[in-house]
Order: sequence, then structure tokens, then C-alpha cells
Amino acid sequence: MQAVRLHHYDERPTVEDVPEPQISGPHDVIVRIGGAGLCRTDLHIIEGQWESRAGVELPYILGHENAGWVHEVGSAVEDLAPGDTVIMHPLVTCGLCRACRAGDDMHCAKGDFPGIARDGGMAEFLKTGARAVVKLDPSLQPADVAALADAGLTAYHAVRKAGPQLYPGTKAVVIGAGGLGHIGIQSLKALTPAEIIVVDRSDAALKLAQEFGADHAVVADGSQVQKVQELTDGQGAEVVIDFVGERGAEHDAWAMTRRAGSHFVIGYGGALNVETIDMISTERNVIGNLVGTFNDLAELMTLAAQGKVKLHTQTYPLSAVNDAMDDLDGGRLQGRGILVPGQ
Amino acid sequence: MQAVRLHHYDERPTVEDVPEPQISGPHDVIVRIGGAGLCRTDLHIIEGQWESRAGVELPYILGHENAGWVHEVGSAVEDLAPGDTVIMHPLVTCGLCRACRAGDDMHCAKGDFPGIARDGGMAEFLKTGARAVVKLDPSLQPADVAALADAGLTAYHAVRKAGPQLYPGTKAVVIGAGGLGHIGIQSLKALTPAEIIVVDRSDAALKLAQEFGADHAVVADGSQVQKVQELTDGQGAEVVIDFVGERGAEHDAWAMTRRAGSHFVIGYGGALNVETIDMISTERNVIGNLVGTFNDLAELMTLAAQGKVKLHTQTYPLSAVNDAMDDLDGGRLQGRGILVPGQ
Amino acid sequence: MQAVRLHHYDERPTVEDVPEPQISGPHDVIVRIGGAGLCRTDLHIIEGQWESRAGVELPYILGHENAGWVHEVGSAVEDLAPGDTVIMHPLVTCGLCRACRAGDDMHCAKGDFPGIARDGGMAEFLKTGARAVVKLDPSLQPADVAALADAGLTAYHAVRKAGPQLYPGTKAVVIGAGGLGHIGIQSLKALTPAEIIVVDRSDAALKLAQEFGADHAVVADGSQVQKVQELTDGQGAEVVIDFVGERGAEHDAWAMTRRAGSHFVIGYGGALNVETIDMISTERNVIGNLVGTFNDLAELMTLAAQGKVKLHTQTYPLSAVNDAMDDLDGGRLQGRGILVPGQ
Amino acid sequence: MQAVRLHHYDERPTVEDVPEPQISGPHDVIVRIGGAGLCRTDLHIIEGQWESRAGVELPYILGHENAGWVHEVGSAVEDLAPGDTVIMHPLVTCGLCRACRAGDDMHCAKGDFPGIARDGGMAEFLKTGARAVVKLDPSLQPADVAALADAGLTAYHAVRKAGPQLYPGTKAVVIGAGGLGHIGIQSLKALTPAEIIVVDRSDAALKLAQEFGADHAVVADGSQVQKVQELTDGQGAEVVIDFVGERGAEHDAWAMTRRAGSHFVIGYGGALNVETIDMISTERNVIGNLVGTFNDLAELMTLAAQGKVKLHTQTYPLSAVNDAMDDLDGGRLQGRGILVPGQ
Repeated sequence: MQAVRLHHYDERPTVEDVPEPQISGPHDVIVRIGGAGLCRTDLHIIEGQWESRAGVELPYILGHENAGWVHEVGSAVEDLAPGDTVIMHPLVTCGLCRACRAGDDMHCAKGDFPGIARDGGMAEFLKTGARAVVKLDPSLQPADVAALADAGLTAYHAVRKAGPQLYPGTKAVVIGAGGLGHIGIQSLKALTPAEIIVVDRSDAALKLAQEFGADHAVVADGSQVQKVQELTDGQGAEVVIDFVGERGAEHDAWAMTRRAGSHFVIGYGGALNVETIDMISTERNVIGNLVGTFNDLAELMTLAAQGKVKLHTQTYPLSAVNDAMDDLDGGRLQGRGILVPGQ
Repeated sequence: MQAVRLHHYDERPTVEDVPEPQISGPHDVIVRIGGAGLCRTDLHIIEGQWESRAGVELPYILGHENAGWVHEVGSAVEDLAPGDTVIMHPLVTCGLCRACRAGDDMHCAKGDFPGIARDGGMAEFLKTGARAVVKLDPSLQPADVAALADAGLTAYHAVRKAGPQLYPGTKAVVIGAGGLGHIGIQSLKALTPAEIIVVDRSDAALKLAQEFGADHAVVADGSQVQKVQELTDGQGAEVVIDFVGERGAEHDAWAMTRRAGSHFVIGYGGALNVETIDMISTERNVIGNLVGTFNDLAELMTLAAQGKVKLHTQTYPLSAVNDAMDDLDGGRLQGRGILVPGQ
Repeated sequence: MQAVRLHHYDERPTVEDVPEPQISGPHDVIVRIGGAGLCRTDLHIIEGQWESRAGVELPYILGHENAGWVHEVGSAVEDLAPGDTVIMHPLVTCGLCRACRAGDDMHCAKGDFPGIARDGGMAEFLKTGARAVVKLDPSLQPADVAALADAGLTAYHAVRKAGPQLYPGTKAVVIGAGGLGHIGIQSLKALTPAEIIVVDRSDAALKLAQEFGADHAVVADGSQVQKVQELTDGQGAEVVIDFVGERGAEHDAWAMTRRAGSHFVIGYGGALNVETIDMISTERNVIGNLVGTFNDLAELMTLAAQGKVKLHTQTYPLSAVNDAMDDLDGGRLQGRGILVPGQ
Repeated sequence: MQAVRLHHYDERPTVEDVPEPQISGPHDVIVRIGGAGLCRTDLHIIEGQWESRAGVELPYILGHENAGWVHEVGSAVEDLAPGDTVIMHPLVTCGLCRACRAGDDMHCAKGDFPGIARDGGMAEFLKTGARAVVKLDPSLQPADVAALADAGLTAYHAVRKAGPQLYPGTKAVVIGAGGLGHIGIQSLKALTPAEIIVVDRSDAALKLAQEFGADHAVVADGSQVQKVQELTDGQGAEVVIDFVGERGAEHDAWAMTRRAGSHFVIGYGGALNVETIDMISTERNVIGNLVGTFNDLAELMTLAAQGKVKLHTQTYPLSAVNDAMDDLDGGRLQGRGILVPGQ
């Protein structure tokens, strides 16, 4: 089958022919890919940022945001049949460890992460596990929802965690109005009564964000921290969700956070540097975020089915993966890029 | 009256005669001081770390951990009478703002902080507000409990916040086995079933910590992070409470924190420096902590009355304030130093 | 001044001339009433249901949903001035007990309840306490918002407590589409992503409820439990909020509640009768609800200012109080009846 | 094999020879029983209380509190090997539904309940599912811990839910000082700082409860509600856990519950009858409780291993099942009865 494989860090992946994955365990599921989302993490993987963390051997197939149709299932898999339309939780989990049993799939003691730590979904077929599969209404098109599998899930999970802090009269700042930011804004709108302030460098992105429900738009032209302070009576916001996490956004996020408020880190690449006296004199928190739970993904698919969360996407054939990456890196991609095998 | 006043940053405070405070508002309370705790924050104030944050004009009276007996009350104060034995919540609060009404006294919109932002309790008398006063059993001696007002409260508040993460089988690391650490260990013991690992440079402090209930003692000799990893199956602890916050402890604390765990910052002086990828790939949190609520203080006094929280103290007369500070700074103070007027 | 006073249980209140209330304590506030809401509880008071609980001596002035303008303040009251537009939290609280300090105003150890336990606001002037007063934007008309003070607050408080159980895909049943139900529906809409099922005997009320955001309307014609089961795949709803609490609604509510779900009791008059085996074999909960906190009321006023919560009202002069009660009892009042002094 | 089977409701079960269970599915596990706890629910099953709820066809094997050693495993079972010492969570769950993924095993959409809804463990062998199995330290004896599987788990689960309401200074009432009550008291002691008041008819049981950590003992001689009121300053307790649920205890429990407090229902047989005005005027809650989660059971086994939870047991051979039931029903059983096959 055709697949996008990374052979060397700091080099472009290549599209090549590889053997199809095979069922080897009783809970395996082979999925025919209908859409594989492209993510800033794919750029970070190529840059080598995950080299010491993922423990993967090159070459391997990229792609951690996958949707498609069930192709074949292992001997112990019930409730899934070939042809079912499905989206994949990014992790393959054991279902037996403390974390799995508490619903924290992303902390499974044996969790495996296709597209990060083993072959992913930028290919015609993907091998995953039965516990990772969310069944979808057959009317849904995998290419339309694939990016919700990881980007959407990550944004939703952070909003879900921030929710209890966001009562009427509070404000939430969203830094970065790209694919994740859009889901974040819509999730905030669906789950909380907070006023939403969105911060981005691009006027077009801000405009789109306001269509998705942001109440205030702030151009990141150097005055963004001051403007957020003005919009929050000089106090900062109860919740700041930073979808960028590098190039200064990580410092802005902290500076925009109100006393007793929380700064949620999602984007990455930079480093947080805070004096401990600043943390304690204001009792602010910094909250790490890693994808989300299976139940989070199921809830997000419910919001999508209810029309409360929508996603702008742009499709590319598998063979155009490097064009797609260039568009993403160059800021030419509005919404989310999706690779579609056979397109 | 006699009082300990700071005239210049980076210089020792002096003991001198000043006028007694007077009732000026309907909610004012004048307390005759029975004990004023000495705290590392007093050293940090003298060093100027709070200069830009406290907004106080020199000279002023130090002392933010105060207990004593009611001396006089304002016209609108009910339920308090001269002679009542009392301990003071560190903040004088309005009782009307959102934070006060949610119980978050330390975030009162008009909160005033005697000993930090205005005249404190290292003196014969202190002026505070009726909302700051916790009545004590008359059998209790102010000098015995004064240090619970701020040091104890701060430790207890962090433990109270950490509690929901600490179910049977989890581990909590306490960095720093001084006055706060002791209260932290006993509060963890009283409120949670967690196993407690205490980390300190001093063998004597570790020994005392084990008497207070710590399950494991780790000498901070450079191998402390590795030893905590060994005690936690290489995972780190669900909760790490850092009572030091400087000289490397702040980095140790982060490194000792388990995936999905939380690092509570209490001590300060240093800076936290964490790559955002480390926060997100493990979903760890950093939690700021600032004293505690009035209800926290009342709960802590209940634990003290039940004999579940004890404090080692060493008393000094007001005039020996600089000896006490030297003992604290030099590591010669086991437990907590208390200034006793008239002693 | 003119006031509506109850002289005997089971008899109509009378409108008569009484002396104006006077400032007697430092925290007292006298409010000129602009609107006093009429509530089913007023009917229950007259019926004597509160006789043994309220501890009030007849005659006294009814009215526990009050808004108006500050007329005079006690010596210790800051931040309020004659002429300020205000709405009153229903309880006058001490601000010093554990409950007040935890934000649970309705459980104040010394709480006083004007209109239930002492003279209320169906009059030209009301004496209340400074802690009970929420300042409003001067553009707001007291008669428009008065009913939010208690009816609205009660509905909002229950929704706030139910919120954490209501994630995308869950369903909430609202029994009773009157004044409280309308606020309940709008609060659910503003705070949660739940699908809302409303149950009422009146087609007109159901129609209005759907305009306020209910997703499904069920006529209470005897088949309501079965219809709710059908709308919930035979499972019942995660949350059922019963604004009726009598005439069988209290049994319906329990029967409509899903395994592990919660039945919130707001309306009253009937009795709950449940076998303990039914509680434990399904792990369902019954949650009592009593007005709400001051912060709840402030949040609700924020939603009102944002246009997210609206209220249908019908005004009456004080002298028409018994007409208003007849309209309420006879089901002729859509929305909420408001008494306006001087109208 | 030998097994205890119920043939007719309201008749004694018989001990008879039946075929051993066989592996039929990939996740099946056959366990050789080392101990099967006897529970008041077994009496209720025989009385027919579960007839309409369990959906089981007679005859079937009783026994829902089981521990032993792994005998044989299905083809998809990893991490379990013949000879492993194990205790069984009472439910066999799917691991794929919303409830399982949220950790709420007892609400599994496909949950099966051996001993209630299909053949249980009062036999030489039991068939269960891999997800129900908790591995134990090999030094533990199944007969010593079997009763923690359900009785202990149920008590622990309720305490875990009550925990957040129990801060220093609060009181928890435990009604019923039998096997569940003992675990409840020890769990309260391990997890919370609450003062514990235990209520029972038997002086011997109360004495034992005090050895297990109860702070106050109240004889249920008709004055128990008044005595609890006296021990709680006339307020009642923040938490009341009723392990009896019949013969008036269910009414006592409600009457002992403080404003804003919660009454946890565990024992059953009686009915709750509360006027809705009593629920709302005090904002009290009634909380249903059903066994507990797998993680709860693992936590409880941790407490047992730490020596924080102990259990008095009395063993009987399988053939003496009816003697054991008579002892339980007649109040002659201190602690918990355990059937041991082959004894």
C-alpha cells in the first residue's frame, strides 16, 4: 500500500509502497483510512523534538489523526464489523491498568501511539486496537472529521478541564486561532458561559474565529498582553489556553492569567520560565494537557453531530504530503489539512 | 509600645517605641500579641523581594503570623470581647467581594496583609479586622499556635488542594522538613492515605519528620531525585509539595512529579524553567499556593485541638528578633521561632 | 407605608398602612421597593406549610423576591449609596460563620429570611442587610428582574449543581414550565450542552419553553414517564429537575431518573416515597435545593445582562395582591407576577 | 463440583453436585474459590427481593464475594496465570461502554453479576471475566479477604464518595456496626479526619467498632436520634452512612443528617419517606450506593495490605451454608461469614 514514511529526522518524509498491516492479536483492528489529519506535531516529529520521547525506530509511517472504515477485526473483537465508519482515539490502550480504568486513556501504562511511536495512518490502512475505535454515523465522511481525532480532542479535553473555572462573568483567552483554536472556541461556547478573547497574528484567522463564536479578537502585534489586560479590567483572564506554546506565546499566556487563574499549555516548542514568587504571590497554575480521553472524543463527536463544532479542512492526496506540510508551516492553511488516500 | 520595624531593605530591623494602634473603623479589632511567628518570608521581605509587590512604605512593623488576646473592638464587631484568645488569619478582608464570598480570602479584592503590606504583629499590639479573627479555646497559649497562622495555614491549604489526588497507593513528596514541612506532613497524615516521602539536607530534620509521620526519608545530597524515582517505581510521585522553592529544589520538585501529577509551589526565591513539550507530553501541572482560607485556618485549629498537628517552637523576646533571624537563616532553628512581647 | 400583611394562616393577606422600617444596626440597608415577585411559596406560607419552620409571628409582611433602589444605609455600610439600583439576595447573612465563609449563604448560622421569617418586600420599603445587596446597572428596572431574586436564583442554583453531570450527549428533564422552569431551561442552555426535555400539563407553557430553548416538549397527560423513557432510549435522564414537587410530579421525577443519575427537588408540597432497594440497585440520588448563593445571584444577573436569561412578567399594584395570587393559583399567570408599589 | 444452589424463592438453598464451569469466550477466567463471603443480600435474594431486578432463572449458584486462585484463562487473557492469588470485582464488565471507560464498572451497559444474575462463587469454581480480576500478593489468603470483594467494596465506595464533605471538625454517623460498618469505620479513619459516631443495637458490636476507630458509640435503644443530635450540637452530622436501610434505620438516618448534609443509603429492605418541603428547606441529599469501582477495590486492597483495614471473619464449609445463614440472620455472626470449599 501507499504510505508516508519518515526515514531521517530533519528530512522530508517520502511516499512509498509498503506491505499492508496484518491482524496479529485478538483485539487488533485494521482500518481503511478515509482521512489522516496533518498536525504541527508532524513538523515537530520531523524536527526531532519527539526523538527521545517516542522511542520509535525510523523509518515509520506518520499520521496520528485518523478516520476511515473498519476493514478486518481480531478474534476477540465484538461490536465492530467491516464497513463501519469510525474515528480513532489516538492511543491504543490496555483497558486494564489504573489509568484506563479511571478513563485516562492517555496515561495507559502500556499505551501505544500510532503515528508517534509506531506506524500511523498516513497510508491506505492502519492497524489499531478495538478500544481505540469510536463508531460514527455512516453518513459522516472520515475526511471531514479526521482532524477531530487528535487536534480536536486535545482542544476539547483542555476546555473540559477548564470548564469548572468558567462561570458567568469569567473570561477565557484562546491564543492561536488555527485548527485547534477553532475547536477550542466552539467547545468553550458549547460547554461554558465564558466570554472568549481570541489572540492571533492573522486578521483573517481572527475574523474566522469570531464567526466561530469568539467575543473579542486581539491582534498579536506586540500589544496583545496589554490589550487582554484592558479587556479584563487589568486583572487578566480566569483561563488562558495557549495553542501555540512557542515564540513568546508561552510568556504571553502566563502574563494574561488572572490571580488564582490557570494557564493551559497545549502548543509546545518553547519553554516556560516563571519565578516561584510570581506563582505563589498570585496563586496561579500552569496545567499540562495531553490529547484526551476516549469519552472526551465520543463527546466531541456528539457536539459535531449536533452541529455545535465544525472544522474547516483542506484535502490533499497522500502524494502531496510535503505540499501540505509546506502550506501548514508557511501559514497558508486555513483550518486543517487532511490527507486522503486514493484521492 | 515596643515593635520590630524595618527602615531600609537589606538592613536589619530595629526594636523601638511606637504609638499603639487605635480603633478607627467599625470592624477594627486591636489584639494584644501573645506570639508572633518568624518566617522565611520575613527574610525575603528584608532582602527586598516583596518591595515591588507589597506596596508598603518604610518604616513599618513586621510580623504576619499572630496570635494573642482581644484588647478592643470597633462599634460593629459582635461575638468578640476583650480577653478572648484568638489567632489571626493573615489577611484583613472585605467580606463582600466575589473572592470573599467564595471563601477565597487570600484573593479578596481589597485584602490587606498586616506584616507584609502594613504594620504587622511583631509588637505589643496589632490592629486587624473582625473577619480575620479565629476564636480559640481559652486553654490554648497564643505563643504555641501563632506559627499556624501563616506557615501552618499555607502548608495545610496546599495539602487540602492536593487531597483529591491522593488515594490509597499514591505517594506525596514533601521537600523541606522545616516548620512548614512538619505541618504539611501531619496534614497529609490527617487528611489522606498517601505514603509520604520527605526530602531534606539535614539528617536531624528528617528524623523529626519521620516522628511526625513521614514514611520515607531522603537526604538531599544530590541523589534525591534518583532516590525518589526508586521509591516510586521510576514513575515519580502523584503530588510533590515544594516548601523550599529555591537553590534547585524547584527543579527537583518538577523532576519528581509523576505523569498526570501535580507539583505544588510554596517556597520561593528561585525560578521554574520547563520546556512546554515536557508539560504536555506528560500532562503534569504546576500549582501556585498562597496562604489559605479562613475556613482552612479554622480546620487546622481543629486538627491542633485534636492533637493531630503539633509544632516545635522556640521562643525569643521581641528584642532578640535579629538573633532569631540569624538562627533561622543559619539553619539552627528546629521548628519555628516565635517572638513573645514582654518575655 | 402600604404593605401586604398576613394576619392568619389560611386567610388572605390584607393591604394596609404600617410604619416604615428604620435603620437600627450598622449593616442595615433600607430599600425602596421597585418590584416584589409573587411565588408559589407565598401560597404555601398562607396554607401554613412554613408555620413550624419559619418561626415568624403574625401579622407580618410577605415578599421574598425583591428589587428596588437604596434608600438609606447603616453606619458601617460602604459601597452603597441612596439611589443605587439593587436586587436582594433573599437571605440576610452574618458573613462570619463557616457557611457564609464557604459561600453557602443559604446555610448561614444566623441567616434571616425577609418575607418568610420576618417582614418582607411586598411594601413600599424593605429593611435588609448590606451583605444581601447586589448592585445592578442603573439602566435595569427592578420590576423586570425582581423575580430572579428567589425563583430565578433557585432554578439557577440547581442547574449550577447539576452542571458537572451534564456533558455532551446527556439529557436533562425539567418538570414544570412556569417561571422557575423558564429560568432553569435558559440556565441549562447557557451553562451546559445537555439536551433539554420539558414536561408540563399546559401546551402554551410547553410552547413558550421551547422558545426558551427546550429541545423536546412532553405533555403531562399521564404518559409523561413513558415518553421521557422513549426520548432517553429507555434509560431515563442523567438529571431531572422537579420544579413542581407535588401532585405526582415528585414520583415522576424519580421514575425519569437514569441509573447513577440525580433527581433535584425544588418544588414541594408532596412527599418522596422510595424503596431503599431502588436507590441502591440503581445508585440514584435525590438532591435537595434551597435558593442559592450570593455569587449564584450575581452570576444570574450577568446572564440576564448578557441577554441569556429572560423572564416573562406581569405586573400588579400592591393593592391587587389577591388577584395576582388567584391568577397564580388558577394557572392564568404566564411567567411571573410582580407587585409594584405605587403603580 | 460442589455448589450452593437456590431452587425456589423463600426456600433454603441446597448443596449439590454440578458440572464445573468451562472457558467459552476469549476473556473468560475460571477461578478456584478459596473463600466466598456470605452477605445480607443473600438473605434478600432468597426472600425474593431481587427476583424482578436480577433477571436470573432458578436454580443458580449463590455467592457474589469471591476470592481464590486462577485455574484457567481464555485465549485473549494476558497478565493472569494459573495459580495467581486473586479477588474478584463483583461485576463482569465490557470495558468498552461509557460507564466502563469512566471507571463506573457497576454501571456497565453489559455488566453481569455472578451470584446475583448468574452462577456465583459458593462453589469450588467460578467463571468470571478478566476485567473483574484483581491480583493479590501471594501471601494473602483468599478466605481472609473475600468479604472485601463486595461488602468491603460497598462500604469503601460510599466513604470515597462522602470524603469531600468530611473536613476537620465534621462528623460522620455509621449506622450498623456489622461487617460493612467495620470496613466503613476503618475507611473513614484512613481517608478522612471526620469524627465517627457509630450506632448499633448491640453493645458488643459497638465495643468492636470503637476498637476499629469509632470516636463515639450510640446504642440504638430508641433514643439514638436524640443522642446523635446531642453529639452534634443539635445540628446532625454532615454525613450519615446507613448500612441497615430497614426497620426504621432509614428514617433515623435522614433525621440525623445535618442541613446541607448527605444521607448515604447502603443497607436496604425498607423505604424512604420524606416530605419534599423537608428536602428543600434544609437542602439535604439522599445518595444511593451500589458496590464500587474496580479502582475502589484495588485501593481497598492497598489499605488491607497496609494494615489499615481489617476484617473479622468466621469460616464455614460449603455444606454448612444454611448454618451460616442462620447465624447471620440471628445476629450471632460477629464480622463476616466465609464459605470455604473443601474445608
